[in-house]
Amino acid sequence: MLKAIQILGCSSGFISQRLKKSHSGNGFSLISSKGSDTSTSLFLHPFWTPKTLTFRLIRMFSTQSESNSNAPASSSSFSSVAVHSAGNVHKIKFCQWCGGPAKHEIPDGEEKIRAICTLCGKIAYQNPKMVVGCLIEHEKKILLCKRNIEPSYGLWTLPAGYLEIGESAAEGAVRETWEEAGAEVEVVSPFAQLDIPLIGQTYIIFLAKLKKPHFSPGPESSECCLFELDNIPFDSLAFSSIFVTLNLYIEDVKSGKIKFHYGTINKRLGTGPSDIRAFTLDYHLQA
Amino acid sequence: MLKAIQILGCSSGFISQRLKKSHSGNGFSLISSKGSDTSTSLFLHPFWTPKTLTFRLIRMFSTQSESNSNAPASSSSFSSVAVHSAGNVHKIKFCQWCGGPAKHEIPDGEEKIRAICTLCGKIAYQNPKMVVGCLIEHEKKILLCKRNIEPSYGLWTLPAGYLEIGESAAEGAVRETWEEAGAEVEVVSPFAQLDIPLIGQTYIIFLAKLKKPHFSPGPESSECCLFELDNIPFDSLAFSSIFVTLNLYIEDVKSGKIKFHYGTINKRLGTGPSDIRAFTLDYHLQA
Repeated sequence: MLKAIQILGCSSGFISQRLKKSHSGNGFSLISSKGSDTSTSLFLHPFWTPKTLTFRLIRMFSTQSESNSNAPASSSSFSSVAVHSAGNVHKIKFCQWCGGPAKHEIPDGEEKIRAICTLCGKIAYQNPKMVVGCLIEHEKKILLCKRNIEPSYGLWTLPAGYLEIGESAAEGAVRETWEEAGAEVEVVSPFAQLDIPLIGQTYIIFLAKLKKPHFSPGPESSECCLFELDNIPFDSLAFSSIFVTLNLYIEDVKSGKIKFHYGTINKRLGTGPSDIRAFTLDYHLQA
Repeated sequence: MLKAIQILGCSSGFISQRLKKSHSGNGFSLISSKGSDTSTSLFLHPFWTPKTLTFRLIRMFSTQSESNSNAPASSSSFSSVAVHSAGNVHKIKFCQWCGGPAKHEIPDGEEKIRAICTLCGKIAYQNPKMVVGCLIEHEKKILLCKRNIEPSYGLWTLPAGYLEIGESAAEGAVRETWEEAGAEVEVVSPFAQLDIPLIGQTYIIFLAKLKKPHFSPGPESSECCLFELDNIPFDSLAFSSIFVTLNLYIEDVKSGKIKFHYGTINKRLGTGPSDIRAFTLDYHLQA
């Protein structure tokens, strides 16, 4: 399934020449705030108080707009849209267990409309899905994959995909890295949990290191490449979650302390899938 | 929906008298290991190297056995079994979108058997679900809820439940805390992610504090009570995830440093739901 393994560097040519450092990608203005005007551009700045865990509300904005109605969707590779997206209870017309027609009502003791089977009475709950991936550090560089599939074909991402039943998040992140980047990695530490409520996804990103100095694009990637932090293609990233993760990582590296980050990426309704900077990063917590 | 609010203390009587400190609950032997014999009882001990994020494999055992075939299952309150458990692709007989009969095959480009609609071709992916909850600290005590529903009726747990579409994990944890403990809380920091692959669940636990010094059991709880760390009812806890979370927290408090924990709870197959100590804690990572 995988193309020939190459020894480090880029797994296909002409990448570093094409990509320039995106100053705008890192260029937030600096405001650390609680409850500030959310229409202001704010800097994604890590807080850290060693002896007391802190709570900060940070909103990170940019000038573009975005929507993830065509969000990554398949179980492990973002390839089938709608089935896995945020969930619309009214799209569930039948019971998947008995085939009975579904009704859409609020069950006793609950508060939300659910799809309830009119024959067997089972409820088809819809819940957010976890996308697990690795931020692979190697010689002060980061491994990125260029997407060979929609959505965000041709744009750069971390190796990541939907967590499967029966595996842990760390195992899923390692599997996805092998499938998308042909890289054997060891998970080093949890780095970020980024919820995206609008599309019913939670990104779980681990820091990882290469077990062997090899990588090669899998079927879902056209290229894999190690990028110096100054050369990360911020203008050509695939998803808001990757944009946030890489910014958090760069800030941590600059501060000399890698932390764990929790945050909520609230996308702006009605904006396009390509507008990966149209969001606020809310409830940014660190440990 | 909620019973009358009470000012702190226990929300029903006779709790502190009934519960004794469970020495066995904290009583692991101490071995910090990588790849050690997994049949050995090992201590759940937090590692922390401030300047280098570390990877440790810890296995935590006890003498009992457990199974979660009757795992917590409903969307937000663990009340309906099977619909939400780890997922069995062969239970999916029909397409929930068009009602067509499902076949069970490995789709092109994938590696796992999926339920595929024979009419519209859509794939019904099954993915792990997030259970979000709060570990509420108040005056060196922890708020626990006594379950008023199955599974684990009458046993103690942290307020937690399934994350809903459209909310962040932090929002879900706050909501569940209100629903189950009648407590308004503010999330302080991420504390733990504990995957349970066997039952397709991931626990996301936040440290939180009371916004008002009030709590009261919701419909799914019979009692809510603040416990001193020395009096946590380890012999009467509802779930392995809660057992692990509380142990990690106590160790962190003792060490003087609260960390973020990632780990995998691997349950022993074929054991009973009440055997919450029949597991290993693998891939315990900290940040």
